[in-house]
Amino acid sequence: MKIVVLMHFDAPSREKLEKALPGCEIVYAFDTSLTYLDREDFDRDKYGAALSDADAVVGNPPADLIPDMKKLGLLQLFSAGTEPYSLPGVLPEGAKLANTSGAFGKAISEHMLASLLTLSKKLHLYRDDMREGLWRDRGSVSSLTDMTVLSVGMGDIGSQFLRLVKLLGARTVGVRKHSLSRPDWVDESYLAEDLDSLLPRADVVALSVPGNAETRGMFGEERLRRMKKGAFLLNVGRGSAVDSPALCRVLSEGRLAGAALDVTDPEPLPPEHPLWRCENVLITPHVSGFYHLRETYDRIVSIAVENLVRFREGKPLLTPVDPATGYRETQTWS
Amino acid sequence: MKIVVLMHFDAPSREKLEKALPGCEIVYAFDTSLTYLDREDFDRDKYGAALSDADAVVGNPPADLIPDMKKLGLLQLFSAGTEPYSLPGVLPEGAKLANTSGAFGKAISEHMLASLLTLSKKLHLYRDDMREGLWRDRGSVSSLTDMTVLSVGMGDIGSQFLRLVKLLGARTVGVRKHSLSRPDWVDESYLAEDLDSLLPRADVVALSVPGNAETRGMFGEERLRRMKKGAFLLNVGRGSAVDSPALCRVLSEGRLAGAALDVTDPEPLPPEHPLWRCENVLITPHVSGFYHLRETYDRIVSIAVENLVRFREGKPLLTPVDPATGYRETQTWS
Repeated sequence: MKIVVLMHFDAPSREKLEKALPGCEIVYAFDTSLTYLDREDFDRDKYGAALSDADAVVGNPPADLIPDMKKLGLLQLFSAGTEPYSLPGVLPEGAKLANTSGAFGKAISEHMLASLLTLSKKLHLYRDDMREGLWRDRGSVSSLTDMTVLSVGMGDIGSQFLRLVKLLGARTVGVRKHSLSRPDWVDESYLAEDLDSLLPRADVVALSVPGNAETRGMFGEERLRRMKKGAFLLNVGRGSAVDSPALCRVLSEGRLAGAALDVTDPEPLPPEHPLWRCENVLITPHVSGFYHLRETYDRIVSIAVENLVRFREGKPLLTPVDPATGYRETQTWS
Repeated sequence: MKIVVLMHFDAPSREKLEKALPGCEIVYAFDTSLTYLDREDFDRDKYGAALSDADAVVGNPPADLIPDMKKLGLLQLFSAGTEPYSLPGVLPEGAKLANTSGAFGKAISEHMLASLLTLSKKLHLYRDDMREGLWRDRGSVSSLTDMTVLSVGMGDIGSQFLRLVKLLGARTVGVRKHSLSRPDWVDESYLAEDLDSLLPRADVVALSVPGNAETRGMFGEERLRRMKKGAFLLNVGRGSAVDSPALCRVLSEGRLAGAALDVTDPEPLPPEHPLWRCENVLITPHVSGFYHLRETYDRIVSIAVENLVRFREGKPLLTPVDPATGYRETQTWS
């Protein structure tokens, strides 16, 4: 079995992989001089050929190289997002696709909490005032102990976020598509069809849904206006879930108190885009996940190694992706 | 008994006060048209005379009016800080002084947590980048689950802050002056004499000490350099506890990762002060307490009413201040 690794694998990660899969031919497209935080592209000329007879690939290859990957049996992404690989016809027939669902819950949920607290304590506005040396009181703030937090999406990220806000005293409500099951820190659980009736009572709406046709434009103007006056919106799933111009309008009217967006539409957001200057929006450039916490990287490596072992042994994968929905096979958006 | 109220008392607060102290003469220096968030000064011409024969005063009067307050038996401050009232000779002999220790723990500890998460997730830097429409990755972040948090001062504020970070997975260490007692969410407790030996292993040092001769310059250059490389400093007590120029030097060398200051020296910080532009400092203009959470205001009113009742009945006060230290009578800094 030949494995091509298109993500940085440091020395401990290589040792782990090689120990778990003895006898495999392994090609690493990045040398160990790079740190796990480097985001460089691999050398296509040098490693493109290696892909053509790889049985398994770890990482997210440029889509145009995939037609050459004739032997591909498993594409193990380093991301939770699965586009474009999950789109019909992209992967060779019979090839399995796995993502790294579960690796990002900790890092992203902590980022969400930090963003929400920044907005609710107005720290973004105090940061702005610092530029002018302005000692100015920005008035009242809010506390999680008085908030109902609604998570739309109850996968690893959404449910971990609710765990954190519950610890700090919030009331927690989860919405998932197909199931009412919930961890014990979630006070109430609903199906997607109830979303509109829940919005008027949520002080925070947190979106962690994948990007697909079903979630595109999920929060358009009508739904944004259905949210409680003074509420906060968080989005860490895909930028396409929120209508940006509508969000700006609703925020500028003071209807919502703020929004924290780690994902935008488009990405990267061009410098002249009005969203940058929209009142009470806090934008981070899709950084809540990646490997910004070392633990995320370690989890990704663990998932990848485990899936490679299972693939070789013909066992079910840990994090298989359903090409029809772009998400875990057992769920569309959970 | 004549009571002069020099802070905004809204209708429910007045009702509470009047019900608890029937038969008292009560003068309110602010009318109910103001909201509890207004920070206006009271009308000295109109209410200065009323103070001269007040038995009890609620609020923080200008110090120059105190010599005229001949009958003063109780000064109930609306603040936790007690300067200048606690300085020798300021209050008439025999007058009791009470602060509102305990009212601010929730608001200030939440502000501290928000500031720490902002710094550790680099949200202040992403906020800066927004001005230029800059989609730029700021690199690795840190998690509370990997941090040891040291609180210097274990009164209501310091201990509540440790409670919050403990919930989010931090290891918690408290330093207090005279006692090793600790709430069960504090992993380790030490006396002040051990502070220097604790600094090299704390990822966060949080100061909530009162302003007095003993705490002035507590964190000078030597102590700041004793802190762990890459640590965060938080200060919500009094600005005088930290040597600002030394802090700027230590931060600019990259020795510390950041500092969140809700108090500065001087206050207000003048627009040209270098601290405003010091790298990785997050400044808020002494707003973490005040009444920015409605709950803080309600607690202040409750403490004031309870102390007035106890004063009239000749019972020990709930929050008496020792004039020698400027803090609760039972502690210097706890």
